[in-house]
Amino acid sequence: MLSLASSGAIIDAAIAKARESGLAPIAVAVLDAGGHLIAFKREDGAGFFRFDIASGKAWGSLGMGFDSRELSNRAKNLPTFFSMLSVAAGGRLVASPGGVLIEDAQGNLIGAVGISGDLGDQDEACAIAGIEAAGLRARPSKVA
Amino acid sequence: MLSLASSGAIIDAAIAKARESGLAPIAVAVLDAGGHLIAFKREDGAGFFRFDIASGKAWGSLGMGFDSRELSNRAKNLPTFFSMLSVAAGGRLVASPGGVLIEDAQGNLIGAVGISGDLGDQDEACAIAGIEAAGLRARPSKVA
Amino acid sequence: MLSLASSGAIIDAAIAKARESGLAPIAVAVLDAGGHLIAFKREDGAGFFRFDIASGKAWGSLGMGFDSRELSNRAKNLPTFFSMLSVAAGGRLVASPGGVLIEDAQGNLIGAVGISGDLGDQDEACAIAGIEAAGLRARPSKVA
Amino acid sequence: MLSLASSGAIIDAAIAKARESGLAPIAVAVLDAGGHLIAFKREDGAGFFRFDIASGKAWGSLGMGFDSRELSNRAKNLPTFFSMLSVAAGGRLVASPGGVLIEDAQGNLIGAVGISGDLGDQDEACAIAGIEAAGLRARPSKVA
Repeated sequence: MLSLASSGAIIDAAIAKARESGLAPIAVAVLDAGGHLIAFKREDGAGFFRFDIASGKAWGSLGMGFDSRELSNRAKNLPTFFSMLSVAAGGRLVASPGGVLIEDAQGNLIGAVGISGDLGDQDEACAIAGIEAAGLRARPSKVA
Repeated sequence: MLSLASSGAIIDAAIAKARESGLAPIAVAVLDAGGHLIAFKREDGAGFFRFDIASGKAWGSLGMGFDSRELSNRAKNLPTFFSMLSVAAGGRLVASPGGVLIEDAQGNLIGAVGISGDLGDQDEACAIAGIEAAGLRARPSKVA
Repeated sequence: MLSLASSGAIIDAAIAKARESGLAPIAVAVLDAGGHLIAFKREDGAGFFRFDIASGKAWGSLGMGFDSRELSNRAKNLPTFFSMLSVAAGGRLVASPGGVLIEDAQGNLIGAVGISGDLGDQDEACAIAGIEAAGLRARPSKVA
Repeated sequence: MLSLASSGAIIDAAIAKARESGLAPIAVAVLDAGGHLIAFKREDGAGFFRFDIASGKAWGSLGMGFDSRELSNRAKNLPTFFSMLSVAAGGRLVASPGGVLIEDAQGNLIGAVGISGDLGDQDEACAIAGIEAAGLRARPSKVA
């Protein structure tokens, strides 16, 4: 199970990484394995829609079983199918890098983090940094 | 403007109050004046639907202009009207104590906190404690 | 047809009436006969959800063919039916006084005004004052 | 805070610009920083769907943090991602020029105007003219 303590640590470390890297203001959502929000922070200056995008990257990763970089790659080849998935999900799925699955020490899937605010590659780097700073493991992307 | 720093302080103080008081696990959402999430934490053991309820108390308070205790009082007398408001709001409005408006030192409305997890009166007490611990003001309820 | 010029005149006169009467800040929506927004103003200090409520009073009046005072009276006797109507309307129908049908000089239905912000009776008085100030006619309520 | 007085001035000046320029009838929406409608006017002859488009340009600009010309540019390169954002936003985001962010004298984001009715470039020119006529500042487009 992913605790609130770990979730808060992931978020704070991801934001620290964004500040060190001089990124645009970001929003960071941590969801449990059921796709439900445990914790969230949106930096001053980040647009209000960033919550939906950050959550959508994490929700889509959990719902499909792989991270949102892989979702994004598949969406390029299957645009109509992914538009349908988006509708089927009620808008809760967003296919763009920045959603990363979280594993415990035994490799069990325990949740996901989603970040939005800068470019997808930068968002994803903050997500991985956050997970590792909290002593957990980011599940490697299938296409890495 | 309600900063992320203040929002985080509100949440941590509200949760500390809940632990001191021996309450059930709570979820705490802080929204800006436009009804958008700035920060959120859900304690271990709190059900996943608590996010929607906590947010809904805060969103309803901001959308109508008074806290969710007053929303709750009005809903008792006007049940059908409030059912319609719930639908009109797309489910984002929840009428039960625990949503409290946040003012700055000049009395400007800058956001709201919503809490769900224990009884409404207890949730509300944590909301007020959190706001005050962050050096801000809880707008008094119209019916207080 | 209800012109933008007349719609703007209705809104400005309704707000003037609210200020003269010392009411809470109001939101005023004018819709054409098809239920679509022509013009809208929300006074400083009125909550953001007031748009949906004001529009919903006007939309419901036009959709059913009588004003929202009558909608409100019927809802008291048929709460489950009106909850269903609210869902069927996707939340666009709100049953509370303050939505008034607008007629031209020949008695043709050309639109509706909806107001939210103060008590329903006060909102309705402003709606009627606005319509009359613009040289149009408020269709009398069936139950007046 | 963006006042109703300023919002009304923006709309009237934008419409005056459209008439001077001989444009098709337009719809003009002014939203606060939280994406909520403050004021709106739709000229006689403008289709009823123009409200949704005008509002969507403004809402999308505020939600993402840059104007709808930039949204439009990004959507050309990322069509599937933007289809998903549209669904995630419940249809409230529209990526086409004509949505412009409004700043106060200190450069703070206080709202947005969205216009629909003529070509996007023309809509945008009216939006900027309206903002400047009201003594406020249009935030320059990232790609200008």
